[in-house]
Amino acid sequence: MKITAVIMAGGKGERFWPKSRESHPKQFLSLTDDGKTMIQKTVSRISPLVQTEDIFIVTNACYRHLVIEQLPDIPPENVLSEPCGRNTAPCIAFAAAVIKKKYGNAVMLVLPSDHLIKYENIYTQILCNAVVMATQGNNLVTIGITPSYPETGYGYINFGEQCGNAYKVERFVEKPDLKTAEKYLSSGKYLWNSGMFVWQVSAIEERFRKFMPEVYRGAEKIGQAFGTADFEKILETEYNKFPSESIDFGIMEKAENIYTIPASFGWDDVGNWLAVERINKTDDNKNYTEGDVITENCKHTTVCGGKRLVAAVGVEDIIIVDTDDALLVCSKNSTQDVKKIIARLKEKNRTELI
Amino acid sequence: MKITAVIMAGGKGERFWPKSRESHPKQFLSLTDDGKTMIQKTVSRISPLVQTEDIFIVTNACYRHLVIEQLPDIPPENVLSEPCGRNTAPCIAFAAAVIKKKYGNAVMLVLPSDHLIKYENIYTQILCNAVVMATQGNNLVTIGITPSYPETGYGYINFGEQCGNAYKVERFVEKPDLKTAEKYLSSGKYLWNSGMFVWQVSAIEERFRKFMPEVYRGAEKIGQAFGTADFEKILETEYNKFPSESIDFGIMEKAENIYTIPASFGWDDVGNWLAVERINKTDDNKNYTEGDVITENCKHTTVCGGKRLVAAVGVEDIIIVDTDDALLVCSKNSTQDVKKIIARLKEKNRTELI
Repeated sequence: MKITAVIMAGGKGERFWPKSRESHPKQFLSLTDDGKTMIQKTVSRISPLVQTEDIFIVTNACYRHLVIEQLPDIPPENVLSEPCGRNTAPCIAFAAAVIKKKYGNAVMLVLPSDHLIKYENIYTQILCNAVVMATQGNNLVTIGITPSYPETGYGYINFGEQCGNAYKVERFVEKPDLKTAEKYLSSGKYLWNSGMFVWQVSAIEERFRKFMPEVYRGAEKIGQAFGTADFEKILETEYNKFPSESIDFGIMEKAENIYTIPASFGWDDVGNWLAVERINKTDDNKNYTEGDVITENCKHTTVCGGKRLVAAVGVEDIIIVDTDDALLVCSKNSTQDVKKIIARLKEKNRTELI
Repeated sequence: MKITAVIMAGGKGERFWPKSRESHPKQFLSLTDDGKTMIQKTVSRISPLVQTEDIFIVTNACYRHLVIEQLPDIPPENVLSEPCGRNTAPCIAFAAAVIKKKYGNAVMLVLPSDHLIKYENIYTQILCNAVVMATQGNNLVTIGITPSYPETGYGYINFGEQCGNAYKVERFVEKPDLKTAEKYLSSGKYLWNSGMFVWQVSAIEERFRKFMPEVYRGAEKIGQAFGTADFEKILETEYNKFPSESIDFGIMEKAENIYTIPASFGWDDVGNWLAVERINKTDDNKNYTEGDVITENCKHTTVCGGKRLVAAVGVEDIIIVDTDDALLVCSKNSTQDVKKIIARLKEKNRTELI
């Protein structure tokens, strides 16, 4: 069966402000020293499994030019432009309908565009196992990350009995508090929900029909119009009617035959500025710097310099990000609050900085 | 007797990098919200005591244009340009010789150009008392600041018996350690050495002749040449021969008839970036910000913004200074280490940033 990939690239990356902007979000940035952007790395990482012409990128219409610029080998018709953001469920239904139109049925690898994977061979092995599982009936397979510490910022997957290389999913749980996360970790029965899914188009379509029938019908119309002159118009009309819903809440938490494959391939969701020191090499004082930077007696400090000299003196556990028009100085305890800066800029209508 | 003022404005202000640069140091910057530069405030503060034409500014030749630009009312011939920096003793000898040439004898108020005074009326009252003391014989009068806490970054003046409004100086002491500073404070017999002096030209000349005879002779030649065609040449020749020496070490610590007047007029030496929050109004979280700044959950943080937005998130006890070509992020414990950044820039020959 044809193996396709659907890369979801509609995020705004607000937690990476000021480098990430609404017009140029995180998935289009390079946050590692190899100079490749997050989405470029995502595409290159799945190339052992999926042919380039079978890779689909779903993104907001306003990022279409960035996708085409950064991924010139992807056929432009595979870049699926959402007229508006409606979270992951409509995004996946849209892609599934297009793939159905093109191939009838196929396996879909559904992947975020802005995560990092350290051990790419293990990654493709795991995905290959997931493909096997997905082709055995109408299973929905999700990749679960073996947790290494009690993270409170992720959702968890509780799994039960083994079934081949996969495990039956008992339930999906929301972000826990620390105590609960510690319990999850020690139980050995919980995985981090990575947002990576594998299934057949027919399997996910069946679930949309059952749990999100209005999205199913809309996506059907979009799929049928794909490749015709009416496509843009129908896409716009139908997409605007979609509810904004995640695939987890809309389908995964309700459906049967959900399986998970536990994975340890050095996954990082690159969720906020703290990730930069994790995914890059730090110096003896655990500082990470890029650009024209001088550190004097600093520890555990991340400096992403811009066009100017940045001098950091005697600071610890601080993140400094310099850009042409905005500078962020953030405590490592407060990386989630970067979003609040964007909210305040919005209040002030300072859209040029968002 | 004529009252003159000699404002010493040759400092480099390294501890205020990156706002202060070798080409535009601290005394020529505005660090308060009234928009006046430090040297402008110094001149305006002594105007109740000294006529404008009797104010002399001694500065490095390379800052002459800044003095003339910022102080257009000072006669250009009163701007005394040092060919090279030789610390305060030669600077004062130079000014004394010029004033002697012009007025024979006069009272000299010798003042730093980069300090702040909160209570200016008390300041002029104290200086007036010092002038009275200085005109009674060959007394050298120094203004001592009543210490408010055991500062270890200043020199101290130990005083003895009272004599009119002044006290006899027993000795000058170098920067103490904390324990010694605490003893000084509780003894009630120590003042901070402010670097402000009052004396007659004849009195300081007599001491130069005795304790720094080579400086005396060189200054004599410079004074005699003042106003003649040879002045520049003689100034250059003689100045280069001067040793680099402070007035404290060269004269004050050795001479007799030294008096001090204790003063409490809200003096601040504006010694490093910590001063900015002291001399300006802070918000409820003790943050001081200027420019386009957003703070989110910050405390005790100073942000001197430049042309761009600065967003500070969750930081505490941090100083952020943004300029066009360099940015400083400094812990409040490390303000003295800003000099080390300049040293490292010098090593790298990055003079454009110094």
